[in-house]
Amino acid sequence: MNKAQLIQAIEEKDTLLCVGLDTDIQRVPDFIRQHYDNPVLEFNRRIIEATKNHCIAYKFNIAFYEALGAEGWKILGDSLALIPEGIFTIADAKRGDIGNTSSLYARTFFETYEFDSLTVSPYMGSDSLEPFYGYSDKWIIILGLTSNKGSRDVQMQPLADGRKVYEETIRRSAQYGDSSNTMFVVGATKTEYIQRIREIVPDHFFLMPGIGKQGGDLDASLRYGLNKDYGLLINSSRGVIYADDGEGFDNAATKVCKDLNQDMRVSLRKYH
Amino acid sequence: MNKAQLIQAIEEKDTLLCVGLDTDIQRVPDFIRQHYDNPVLEFNRRIIEATKNHCIAYKFNIAFYEALGAEGWKILGDSLALIPEGIFTIADAKRGDIGNTSSLYARTFFETYEFDSLTVSPYMGSDSLEPFYGYSDKWIIILGLTSNKGSRDVQMQPLADGRKVYEETIRRSAQYGDSSNTMFVVGATKTEYIQRIREIVPDHFFLMPGIGKQGGDLDASLRYGLNKDYGLLINSSRGVIYADDGEGFDNAATKVCKDLNQDMRVSLRKYH
Repeated sequence: MNKAQLIQAIEEKDTLLCVGLDTDIQRVPDFIRQHYDNPVLEFNRRIIEATKNHCIAYKFNIAFYEALGAEGWKILGDSLALIPEGIFTIADAKRGDIGNTSSLYARTFFETYEFDSLTVSPYMGSDSLEPFYGYSDKWIIILGLTSNKGSRDVQMQPLADGRKVYEETIRRSAQYGDSSNTMFVVGATKTEYIQRIREIVPDHFFLMPGIGKQGGDLDASLRYGLNKDYGLLINSSRGVIYADDGEGFDNAATKVCKDLNQDMRVSLRKYH
Repeated sequence: MNKAQLIQAIEEKDTLLCVGLDTDIQRVPDFIRQHYDNPVLEFNRRIIEATKNHCIAYKFNIAFYEALGAEGWKILGDSLALIPEGIFTIADAKRGDIGNTSSLYARTFFETYEFDSLTVSPYMGSDSLEPFYGYSDKWIIILGLTSNKGSRDVQMQPLADGRKVYEETIRRSAQYGDSSNTMFVVGATKTEYIQRIREIVPDHFFLMPGIGKQGGDLDASLRYGLNKDYGLLINSSRGVIYADDGEGFDNAATKVCKDLNQDMRVSLRKYH
């Protein structure tokens, strides 16, 4: 999916919402686990059905599928096939290695599985990310500033010139590609930093994973993060897919999406 | 495998050699691809048979298996089962994410697959690595300083106090665990930095992936890297497993290991 198509999806659905399919077999409702041979796939099928009209992207947290072994990768592919055309797909895998290895990661997520995008770690630098740029209409989403406590340990370290490691990391890695093929992960619990990152990369999309369980401030995220192309994907995972643990979990997921979208539209009207 | 057992293996075999099973289906010799239903597994079986008496560890580059889809994860498990007892196993996957996701990565590599160790990226900091420490006799191997060109982009950035990002990253992340459960990836092409890292973490093992195709200097690596417990795993991947592309590839792999060990023993006698 290219940038124009992504913007079009945002305008048509009037939302920035990305739903995270971090499906943990242990949290799939009992009645699904009891009645289906493949409960994770059935859970995903119902969540996708319940949310597809209310979001513009799905993010698969690859760890949850990988933990199921070979069968998990089959479920990943089968779940991806259920996503309707016109919805952006993210493999949240945070990969990154030397060039020949990164080429294989690119092959996995862009060819074996046809995701639109992949999250990557910038720690190994430019040549570790280059292989991901050889695909048209595919995106890489680089860890910029994350919302967890440990972001202090590397990302927030002060450099000799007063800037922080995350600022220089984002500045440099923005040069590997451009805003048509690169996004940044920006932790939404750090609203005071969103403005700073928007100065460094005014044109790029940010993937903000902090809404919901991680406690981000939605209105402030839009206020400081929006750009002329919208430039934001707002992710909610557990808050949507585990909104209810009973037979009505899919209806509950729909309701959470609608509520999030209602709040988001208030901020969109104010700031875009 | 615990530290005493690892040291015992090094002493018994008189080597620090780790063989990297970065098995690329496209580089498996033709006669194997033509005669076996599962050429990657057969290739690994023969390489393990040819090298198991000459190394103390095997490193699986997970990207190569993942790129084969669900079948690749089956091959990974079947290959791991071929490694004899008493040889250290490394899942080279460079994972790292927020806590609940890292817990799943730990489950994958330490439970679903019973690797002794996993490589991880430190970019997300302490709480992204904590879940890996909940296992006895398992190790995490943290990216410290890598040998690729892109290591300049983040790792070599100068901090306010004059040290480099990789130095502070190693210093901090050494505190998450201790030298009985933590190692560092140290790129062996940077011999001038090995001494510096050895000062920061005198007791930890280093995984050095730079020998062979990446062009590290073996003697200098041992000179500056060895500690009282040896403290080094020296990896060679392509140099061993692709030593020959014909029917004699396994004998060629044995010979490369023996030659590497001969050189290594000269340095071991000098510096340990």
